[in-house]
Amino acid sequence: MLHRIGKYTIGFEDAPIITGFGAVAGKKEANGPLKDNFDKIFYDSRAGQSTFEKAESLFQQEAVGVALKKAQKKAEDIDFIFAGDLLNQCISSSYGLKDYNIPYLGQYGACSTMAQGLIMASVMVGSGGANCAVCVTSSHFCSAERQYRFPLEYGGQRTPTAQWTVTGSGSCVVERKSKGIAVRRATVGKIVDLGVSDLNNMGAAMAPAAAKTLQEFFKDTGTKPKNYDLLLTGDLGKVGSDCLYELMSKEGLNIKNNHKDCGLMIFDIKKQDVHAGGSGCGCAGSVLCSTILPEILNGKYNNILFIATGALMSPTSSMQGETIPSVAHLVNLSLV
Amino acid sequence: MLHRIGKYTIGFEDAPIITGFGAVAGKKEANGPLKDNFDKIFYDSRAGQSTFEKAESLFQQEAVGVALKKAQKKAEDIDFIFAGDLLNQCISSSYGLKDYNIPYLGQYGACSTMAQGLIMASVMVGSGGANCAVCVTSSHFCSAERQYRFPLEYGGQRTPTAQWTVTGSGSCVVERKSKGIAVRRATVGKIVDLGVSDLNNMGAAMAPAAAKTLQEFFKDTGTKPKNYDLLLTGDLGKVGSDCLYELMSKEGLNIKNNHKDCGLMIFDIKKQDVHAGGSGCGCAGSVLCSTILPEILNGKYNNILFIATGALMSPTSSMQGETIPSVAHLVNLSLV
Repeated sequence: MLHRIGKYTIGFEDAPIITGFGAVAGKKEANGPLKDNFDKIFYDSRAGQSTFEKAESLFQQEAVGVALKKAQKKAEDIDFIFAGDLLNQCISSSYGLKDYNIPYLGQYGACSTMAQGLIMASVMVGSGGANCAVCVTSSHFCSAERQYRFPLEYGGQRTPTAQWTVTGSGSCVVERKSKGIAVRRATVGKIVDLGVSDLNNMGAAMAPAAAKTLQEFFKDTGTKPKNYDLLLTGDLGKVGSDCLYELMSKEGLNIKNNHKDCGLMIFDIKKQDVHAGGSGCGCAGSVLCSTILPEILNGKYNNILFIATGALMSPTSSMQGETIPSVAHLVNLSLV
Repeated sequence: MLHRIGKYTIGFEDAPIITGFGAVAGKKEANGPLKDNFDKIFYDSRAGQSTFEKAESLFQQEAVGVALKKAQKKAEDIDFIFAGDLLNQCISSSYGLKDYNIPYLGQYGACSTMAQGLIMASVMVGSGGANCAVCVTSSHFCSAERQYRFPLEYGGQRTPTAQWTVTGSGSCVVERKSKGIAVRRATVGKIVDLGVSDLNNMGAAMAPAAAKTLQEFFKDTGTKPKNYDLLLTGDLGKVGSDCLYELMSKEGLNIKNNHKDCGLMIFDIKKQDVHAGGSGCGCAGSVLCSTILPEILNGKYNNILFIATGALMSPTSSMQGETIPSVAHLVNLSLV
């Protein structure tokens, strides 16, 4: 069963356990600080496929495959798969996962999808609706850039606040077990729009959503940032992380000491020419599943908050002059 | 709590109840057979907004507003809203719902979204994760047609198998109550792709998904089509419905006597020049919420299956020569 904590947070009794996880990444990510952590690396942007979109579908297939293997599960053991990505109509997920033949629930949370999928998989397992559920998400620089911004061949100059879409994927298997990495609590975010309309400054657009969800979680649970070993945001990057610190300090909450951002971890932002950091569904997904979950298992962290943020605009809404609505979902993970 | 029934079906103990529902529609739908059933009708395609996309956002707002009012709820009483639509990055939902300030979980199931959202809202309520949850979906002929097919101004000739995207929206409020329309069981579909690649024949692409989910539900529950007053598919249209009859009869299941399709109900397909029928997320959504749920309450039906189907391709995947993967989710509703 689940129960409600305060106004916005849910708690899991007999917390669902993450029993398997997989992360795949591309060449640029493999040249970054987390290079030794990925389960699979694709050095070819097309991964041997005829299109970038098919390559991204393959990343999801591979990430799920690794997660299933680590959890010692087969596809037919899985009751539901929660999947989503950045592409129009989430085609990386639908085409990538169709051969697994697992009941499929498509999610759209933009770059917050890893947290959203993990929450939904945990709700299904925690409620008795599933014995075992999987979540997966992905992004690909080449498929995202040409959909959201410019043709790749154009080679447009990027602004300092721009972020670099991560080529990668992350997947988790969630089950009922007594020991392991437990999903203990979760806060689903509301849509926040403070009027940012610059498509090259997604960090600033998403930071207020992260701040709001974090503040609601702390209020609901009566806890403080210092109660957690790590506050891990998805892809705020340098600009968004600084905005988040400022927004949190206005509420008297200092998170600088135990905050990390997946978008700042996956690349060396000074050496790799990614400007404000990494972004995309695959950023939070691949960093969580390659680096953070193993660090929880090996004892580096015991109790963390994972907050993935998503910007919910489209090229159409931007061309129509709309601002960027954002959302942030939070998951509290701890070793039991 | 939830429990599993057979291999693919979930059952709800203390079944969640649909306590409010709202349906809005456009002018063409208001000229069809269900004209007296809609809660609100927008005779202007732009609904007084500057773009079709903003009009579609307004439909979601209005449908949710009506559903909340009927359930005697305010937005702050709602713990989660599950929403999705056909537009790239689901912008009808994100822009339409941001002012409600309700924790938001974006869904992408194409035209299956009404069933998917209803399942997710019921899971949240049934598990104790929510006291009250809402689902909503929409489509708009003008925003969908230009995104998926041709510019509206082009006025391209349509093939006989083509369907007409419904302009409309449907929304349900789900709560724990002892009486009303109960969500009793649900089967989440797997992705099915039998190789149809004709974007103007979505019914044929989606029928195998509907057949598969229905067959799995009947097998899991040990029931037969005759045990239900109505088998309501989302938007198979004329071609898809005929395909479904054929696929079901191959398994020895005759559903002709108690089957209806929302896409054939919402328009008079002979008089309204819609070829094979209506389609779009708003088709199943608005027919369920305008017509079927009231008919359950007034005793016309007691025990029904609602099976919404979705085609998970995108214009990009189609231009890259891919076939159309489809999915169908089933919800068993009955009066308690």
